[in-house]
Amino acid sequence: MKNFWTNYPEIAYELEIVKNIIKDNIKSSEKYFKESIFELVDAGGKMLRPGLLLIASRFGNYDKEKMYNLAAAIELMHSATLIHDDIIDEARFRRGIETIQSKLGKEYAVYTGDFLFCQCFIMLSKFNYSMDNLREISAAISQICKGEIRQYNLRYSLDTGIKNYLKIISGKTAALFAISLYTGAWESQCDEKTSKLLGRIGYHVGMAFQIIDDILDFTGDTLRLGKKTHTDIIKGYYTLPIIYAIKEDKEGKIKDILENNIIEEKEIQELIKLVNQFKGIEKSRKLADKYTEKAFRSIEELPECKAKKILKEITHELLSRNY
Amino acid sequence: MKNFWTNYPEIAYELEIVKNIIKDNIKSSEKYFKESIFELVDAGGKMLRPGLLLIASRFGNYDKEKMYNLAAAIELMHSATLIHDDIIDEARFRRGIETIQSKLGKEYAVYTGDFLFCQCFIMLSKFNYSMDNLREISAAISQICKGEIRQYNLRYSLDTGIKNYLKIISGKTAALFAISLYTGAWESQCDEKTSKLLGRIGYHVGMAFQIIDDILDFTGDTLRLGKKTHTDIIKGYYTLPIIYAIKEDKEGKIKDILENNIIEEKEIQELIKLVNQFKGIEKSRKLADKYTEKAFRSIEELPECKAKKILKEITHELLSRNY
Repeated sequence: MKNFWTNYPEIAYELEIVKNIIKDNIKSSEKYFKESIFELVDAGGKMLRPGLLLIASRFGNYDKEKMYNLAAAIELMHSATLIHDDIIDEARFRRGIETIQSKLGKEYAVYTGDFLFCQCFIMLSKFNYSMDNLREISAAISQICKGEIRQYNLRYSLDTGIKNYLKIISGKTAALFAISLYTGAWESQCDEKTSKLLGRIGYHVGMAFQIIDDILDFTGDTLRLGKKTHTDIIKGYYTLPIIYAIKEDKEGKIKDILENNIIEEKEIQELIKLVNQFKGIEKSRKLADKYTEKAFRSIEELPECKAKKILKEITHELLSRNY
Repeated sequence: MKNFWTNYPEIAYELEIVKNIIKDNIKSSEKYFKESIFELVDAGGKMLRPGLLLIASRFGNYDKEKMYNLAAAIELMHSATLIHDDIIDEARFRRGIETIQSKLGKEYAVYTGDFLFCQCFIMLSKFNYSMDNLREISAAISQICKGEIRQYNLRYSLDTGIKNYLKIISGKTAALFAISLYTGAWESQCDEKTSKLLGRIGYHVGMAFQIIDDILDFTGDTLRLGKKTHTDIIKGYYTLPIIYAIKEDKEGKIKDILENNIIEEKEIQELIKLVNQFKGIEKSRKLADKYTEKAFRSIEELPECKAKKILKEITHELLSRNY
């Protein structure tokens, strides 16, 4: 995968340091643990959360060592949730490599995730971060769990509704984006107003990012995305495009297909056609745009500096993926 | 189950407060979460770790509210690890009630455990505990994960050996006993010497406790124990009695049975006979006694006070179960 941060060599370089801190914090662990986590870390991913955190830090007094450690903890926490998600989804691949649950078993994956959670908290207690921030970070992870559980509960439900969908993505995605920008700022002695503003930006970016991700599961191209599409439908996660389309589909054609337990390629193609026909994609794009606009409007309120320019560009790149 | 703390009404009462704090900290969560965790909390268990913590607190300046919250966090953390253990063991019952993994599915159990971990850390960031302690607590949980993984890796291994066995139980049991007594003392302004001494006592008690538990899996009575026996052998966890017996069993009779994949009641009875014959139980009891003696010797070093008397009695009750 092309490095998302290529145009920002300073941040790309710092994220390499963050990766090394993550590795340092797990290198003493059991052999299989270490190998599989190293593999996951090296396989990359965009490292959005630590990247955003490092950008937010630049709005204040940037204590590098302290912030790298915080960024590493947040990324590690994100990895822990991914490892546990892969158990639920019985996912075989993540970032192009075999998942821990597939390679070493669900048992292993449960404990690996738990172990990473603990390592995070060990890292978070290494520097003099504020207790308030530790609480906020824990609360954000707690939000993720709640979001995932809500999503899991509503699998195969034809009445998820927009409100529930927004709650799900707010928990599973936006909360960690928000906390990354917020703590990055707050731990760099930004004032409360700027820190909260950055937190809000993170929230809006996270919401737009997840909606776009969900749209791409319908419209995307497996090859270009680097991951399989239409997996949400198959797993029973009916996301925004379907939710919008179901509302318009007065004859219940979509429900008819979904109620039928066998969803194969033919049904998926039919579903995609219907979701388009009932403007599910179009409306989802509009909602993503709304969150994107909110993000940009909030970014405008930030004090002028180089970091603001980077944040604007990164947000643009992130939220204007071809979808 | 008879309340383990009946003879210590003050602590029994405080542990009820601790239970309520646990409930308060999860009551805002999703319905199913809440119900299943409430059920687990109400089903009880001995609440050894918070109980020991509250005893340790009495060696210093006992700030009740702060210590109750800490005790609740430790118990919640223990519950989180149990919920995840039940996934691995595919356990159907725990404390006489159906496990979360059995009732609501493994997926649910993964997120419930994660959610509890987060709630713990939220609780730990509520009071002004020392960062050092947060790190120690995180490290103890990390030890549990490592212990569990080691145990999982060595399932069905006929060459586990005593050293590995001790590492496993040190991680999965003794670490949390140690940290409960240590943090209880340290957060109550005990001096370093007393805190560390209490930590060591917790470690020895934990080691003896787990060895006894493992012996009881061979010699115990399902009805009296309130849990099924011989489950370790069936799950492929070859604990101390077997490890000792294998060493003496020069003809490899035990290995022959274990290498045979079908372990049914007949084989179990044969195994128990052999484990007794090769002094597996006897030697395990001796090692448990050694840790028990170490615990009592360390207790003697503690300053004289009412808490010391309670600790001695509780340790006696805990480590002289009929085994």
